[in-house]
Amino acid sequence: MKRDITILGSTGSIGTQTLEVISELESSRDHEFNVIALACGSNLQLLDEQVGRFEPELVCVKNEELQGKALTQLPDSTRVLSGPDGLKEIAALPATDLLVNALVGFIGLEPTLAGIRAGKKILLANKESLVVGGELVERELEKGSATILPIDSEHNAIFQALQAGQSDEVKRLIITASGGPFLDTPIEEIADATPEEALNHPNWDMGNRITCDSATMVNKGLEVIEAHWLFGLPYERIDAVIHPQSFVHSLVEYRDGSIIAEMGDPDMRVPIQYTLTYPDRYPNDYHKSTLAEVRRLDFRELEEERYPAFKAVVEAGEAGGNRPAAVNGADEALIKLFLDEKIRFGDIATGLNLILDAVSPVEEPTLKDLRETDEWARNSVNRFYEEGKIGFPRGEEL
Amino acid sequence: MKRDITILGSTGSIGTQTLEVISELESSRDHEFNVIALACGSNLQLLDEQVGRFEPELVCVKNEELQGKALTQLPDSTRVLSGPDGLKEIAALPATDLLVNALVGFIGLEPTLAGIRAGKKILLANKESLVVGGELVERELEKGSATILPIDSEHNAIFQALQAGQSDEVKRLIITASGGPFLDTPIEEIADATPEEALNHPNWDMGNRITCDSATMVNKGLEVIEAHWLFGLPYERIDAVIHPQSFVHSLVEYRDGSIIAEMGDPDMRVPIQYTLTYPDRYPNDYHKSTLAEVRRLDFRELEEERYPAFKAVVEAGEAGGNRPAAVNGADEALIKLFLDEKIRFGDIATGLNLILDAVSPVEEPTLKDLRETDEWARNSVNRFYEEGKIGFPRGEEL
Repeated sequence: MKRDITILGSTGSIGTQTLEVISELESSRDHEFNVIALACGSNLQLLDEQVGRFEPELVCVKNEELQGKALTQLPDSTRVLSGPDGLKEIAALPATDLLVNALVGFIGLEPTLAGIRAGKKILLANKESLVVGGELVERELEKGSATILPIDSEHNAIFQALQAGQSDEVKRLIITASGGPFLDTPIEEIADATPEEALNHPNWDMGNRITCDSATMVNKGLEVIEAHWLFGLPYERIDAVIHPQSFVHSLVEYRDGSIIAEMGDPDMRVPIQYTLTYPDRYPNDYHKSTLAEVRRLDFRELEEERYPAFKAVVEAGEAGGNRPAAVNGADEALIKLFLDEKIRFGDIATGLNLILDAVSPVEEPTLKDLRETDEWARNSVNRFYEEGKIGFPRGEEL
Repeated sequence: MKRDITILGSTGSIGTQTLEVISELESSRDHEFNVIALACGSNLQLLDEQVGRFEPELVCVKNEELQGKALTQLPDSTRVLSGPDGLKEIAALPATDLLVNALVGFIGLEPTLAGIRAGKKILLANKESLVVGGELVERELEKGSATILPIDSEHNAIFQALQAGQSDEVKRLIITASGGPFLDTPIEEIADATPEEALNHPNWDMGNRITCDSATMVNKGLEVIEAHWLFGLPYERIDAVIHPQSFVHSLVEYRDGSIIAEMGDPDMRVPIQYTLTYPDRYPNDYHKSTLAEVRRLDFRELEEERYPAFKAVVEAGEAGGNRPAAVNGADEALIKLFLDEKIRFGDIATGLNLILDAVSPVEEPTLKDLRETDEWARNSVNRFYEEGKIGFPRGEEL
């Protein structure tokens, strides 16, 4: 079976790893996988290499200026689109069998909706599609034949573990969390952690926002929201547990007492490959540790006092409407302030709670509502900072 | 859906737990599960209670003497059979939907074969059916529509984990082993361990043979053989790993790098219930620990020097034919001698290797061949003891 693949976000971490997996699969599978379209932001140099290697018919770049540059650099046979409209067009491309959405941020939501309307099988790594747009995505999915396969290692693990039972037999989803760099830090010291300390992630090599989110555990809160929309379970049946080794990627507890887990070395290529080949599993030669090599798997309760931002995000998910959009937008703005050393680490959680208190609730939000909430939240965070509601006490800046 | 159940070995550990599970299910499921026949050995008192509680139409006891006693004790409406022929008849009972074979020992093989010929769904806890009779069982299964669901927690875990993939995608089965009481004993001291030390099993409450087998790790060798026949994998793709907490019941490693595990508190009622309700999972209120309560899962390589008997049993499985029957019979006789303080703990492995050297190989053995091998092995073990090939050096008995 030949599969035509479109990748949105091809030059990012998940995008490049997806192309790496496709390269490996191609070498053993005789061109079963065929890349037909790529979308990226502004990394034209890497896009150029990818076009040379995979020969897609179509690419999309961030804006018209980059489109002009791309047209001169890329082969004449490559069609070049740009901007959000280009992304939507490329997401709905009739020839696409598998749509990989590895875009980072709010910009990924519209292409997901376009892909769903076009009935695509969507391999989803874009968090915002579900965190911010969960209600919209669910509404669109109900109308048609599109499906979503989660790439994220936690949700991919749950997706695999769910094959051992039926959905009404699930008691709880259990999402594992590394605990981040402050797992053993005395709680009273965490609020004053520096960016350098927060960016020191033990197991996964990720971008700055994600790494910072795994220090605050905002990422787990967002994953709880994603799991809610992906698997249709109420929030009280989605738990997170600290597992410092990140070897167990997540678990499903069934109502008979059996817990099914998916585990393995932390390597995003494995879940990426699984979504590409699903329902089949193909071999690969990625490094695989044995259990005897791993030796020990630890689990601890997630302490809410240690991770107050986690609690704020899950509360936003439970409250629903435009609130997840608010905390998601706010979180990005808060991390920027934190990395710029304008606010303390502890201000991230404070800021999220301030945003939840301040947001004007919109139930069943439209895309426009969500975009406005996102923008409002970012601006509000900066206003909180200007007003001194978050940040170092005057005179105590770093 | 109503399910008529026959239980062979109803007064043993698995048998009584099966009836306990059925009681629990009945209370919530409005007589969906109906016990129609029970077979036991000689525990007439418990059988009497079970008949009073579950009202089976038919029972089977060990021999004609007990049959006579049972006829006077049990209600007139209960038919009473006896002996191996009674077991075979009861195993093939036309009305049976689920045949639970929880017999202990060689005597369980013939009823399994009878159940297969009658096209039954067999919930199998009898080790010998596969360890000794694997080839016969496989031949019979190929002819008809019967199926086997493993009750044993390790194989039940693998059976569950196999639902997350296809059989040709399996790289390895990984059977967990508690390591038994000698996990941390200096290797050179193990051979001289006492029966009291060997019977001190940390996690599961089991009978004497099974507990002793988990100290020598013969049980894991036998489970490797069972897994070979149940799941059709070659021996080099079935591993055992030490996992002292017995929380992970076993795992399947797929060729893409994903490892799927089934875990939970060590409680045989969970796999028993799963085989009874399969493919569904019903709720229960058995105690369930959380991962945070378990805190820590350890894994270590199984050291063959520590567990020489394990190696002997797996070698018997690999060699096939009547050799597994030889080591299985020999093991029982060796354990008896050990518990009678006639031989040393280390002599169990020595005896198994002596048996493997001495056995006259029979490929594609018949039931008669297997029975003869079993008897020969038991006698040979006692001869080895008489000849001083195993046992305490003269003058050094305990």
